[in-house]
Amino acid sequence: MIKEITLQELNTSDFINTKIEDIRKAVGDGIAINALSGGVDSSTVTMLGHKALGERLKTVFIENGLMRAGESEQVVGFFRELGVVVDVVDAQKEFFVALKGITDPEEKREAITQTFYRNVFGRIVRESGAKFLLQGTILTDVDETVAGIKRQHNVFEQLGIDPQEAFGYRILEPLIQLRKDGVRKVGKALGLPSELFDRIPFPGPALSARVIGEVTMERIGTVRKATVVVERILKNTGAFQYMAILHEDRVTGMRDGKRDFGQQIEIRCWESVDARTATPTRLSFEILEQLAQGIISEVPGIVSVTYNIATKPPSTIEAI
Amino acid sequence: MIKEITLQELNTSDFINTKIEDIRKAVGDGIAINALSGGVDSSTVTMLGHKALGERLKTVFIENGLMRAGESEQVVGFFRELGVVVDVVDAQKEFFVALKGITDPEEKREAITQTFYRNVFGRIVRESGAKFLLQGTILTDVDETVAGIKRQHNVFEQLGIDPQEAFGYRILEPLIQLRKDGVRKVGKALGLPSELFDRIPFPGPALSARVIGEVTMERIGTVRKATVVVERILKNTGAFQYMAILHEDRVTGMRDGKRDFGQQIEIRCWESVDARTATPTRLSFEILEQLAQGIISEVPGIVSVTYNIATKPPSTIEAI
Repeated sequence: MIKEITLQELNTSDFINTKIEDIRKAVGDGIAINALSGGVDSSTVTMLGHKALGERLKTVFIENGLMRAGESEQVVGFFRELGVVVDVVDAQKEFFVALKGITDPEEKREAITQTFYRNVFGRIVRESGAKFLLQGTILTDVDETVAGIKRQHNVFEQLGIDPQEAFGYRILEPLIQLRKDGVRKVGKALGLPSELFDRIPFPGPALSARVIGEVTMERIGTVRKATVVVERILKNTGAFQYMAILHEDRVTGMRDGKRDFGQQIEIRCWESVDARTATPTRLSFEILEQLAQGIISEVPGIVSVTYNIATKPPSTIEAI
Repeated sequence: MIKEITLQELNTSDFINTKIEDIRKAVGDGIAINALSGGVDSSTVTMLGHKALGERLKTVFIENGLMRAGESEQVVGFFRELGVVVDVVDAQKEFFVALKGITDPEEKREAITQTFYRNVFGRIVRESGAKFLLQGTILTDVDETVAGIKRQHNVFEQLGIDPQEAFGYRILEPLIQLRKDGVRKVGKALGLPSELFDRIPFPGPALSARVIGEVTMERIGTVRKATVVVERILKNTGAFQYMAILHEDRVTGMRDGKRDFGQQIEIRCWESVDARTATPTRLSFEILEQLAQGIISEVPGIVSVTYNIATKPPSTIEAI
């Protein structure tokens, strides 16, 4: 039974000092490793680990080729300014090879998870010689696993490390007593920049969740360009979340005065408090027309743009 | 060279009397046949032929299974009130068999054309004993064939009738000197009801043009139900054209609190003068929300609804 620390109970400087001590005690003169995604949880755990261990924490950012434009540079830049060195590992090829030919959303997610843990991060952990793995698990993750919403994973099994053979591996989860609001408070106290907290929710499988059908480097490139337009135009709406989705269906368009099949981008922009229910933002037609024109002029191959008008439920926030 | 009769030159009662005489002279004591689609051209030619030949004109309405809800009943009803008997031929099965497994839009169109002429109407013509075929060809059709926009078709070849073997078949095209505006004027003078002229443009391949991917009876049933909602809610907008399109892409939805893949309907509503360029109608969000809610509650299997926001070009009015 994990003892929750509520936002009211949380004293950030006490919490940070305690966790730094815990990490130092656990790791001793060994080395630890963690994977940074740029989300609030992994960013906060990176800062805690850095304060505890300095250069004996190895932080990697795995470039899976599915990120938004400039995302890895931005995240690595934030940490560079805080004096934290992040190793960027280019694993794009491995992810696209694993995703080749897969159209089923669950199989896509599984291919990404497998590639991340077993192939890429697993290899990095083994090669690093680190025996301590820092993870940004929070109490909500534990609850969701108990409730069956998230699958229970033995992280070592995921990493392809047999704990029997490779004795001594240990996972450290310093945020496990907190919920999201507590993590945000700790992250801010650790000096993380506000841009990191202000980013709209973004799914684990990144842009692959925004591509209906097969995920290829070319199709990710298309939805990435559309995402730039959508985030630029909608960033000041105050909406809960907004996204561009590349469809697999081909629709007729005109190119040089001739009929030609092209691709369609669907835009979703949501009003929501907790993501459990959501309604489409009532954007003005001026903004809708800016979105359509921006995408058509900046994203090659797109001849059609739609705006989602269905609520959740029965829709979901993401399309896949 | 066909001599055009412009709207200014057109004297409808003279035109009607002349054409009635021409048809009577040509057919003599034989019988004629025509296929009624419910469009302005075929409706006008049906009335002209009926006035000329009475019961010696056999008019058939081929139920291809791709029509909108109540469409065949409505068209046949209009003519019944005008004293014209129309034979409804149920050929739904033949069309769906021909469309099975076809996803390419051009191949779909070809399958419908082939089934219509060669299989269904060709058989009816041969069995009827009629040697005279009344067609609603207008001058614009001729121009478009000359310009290469429409394909040149030998109608007898299309019908599977060899003019060498089956001597004596003849096509009558009484509207060939008119354009659309002239046909409308003649049709009104012949007593056709205004509902026939007020209907929004509808493509030749009917609802099959509103289904991305394979056309099955079930998928036509889905887009037919969505079309009822869209036409009901948008009929007083004064828009040039509006439609529901069933996508092939599956998107995530919630059914009974669980993730479940469902289908998506795209709505398009256009402002246009001549269909060459068009912009999406700036519908209010009240109407967009009514559309989404109506479709979700009345059309089984739909979890997502979008509204087109791209202009033509680069989009086209129809999706396929």
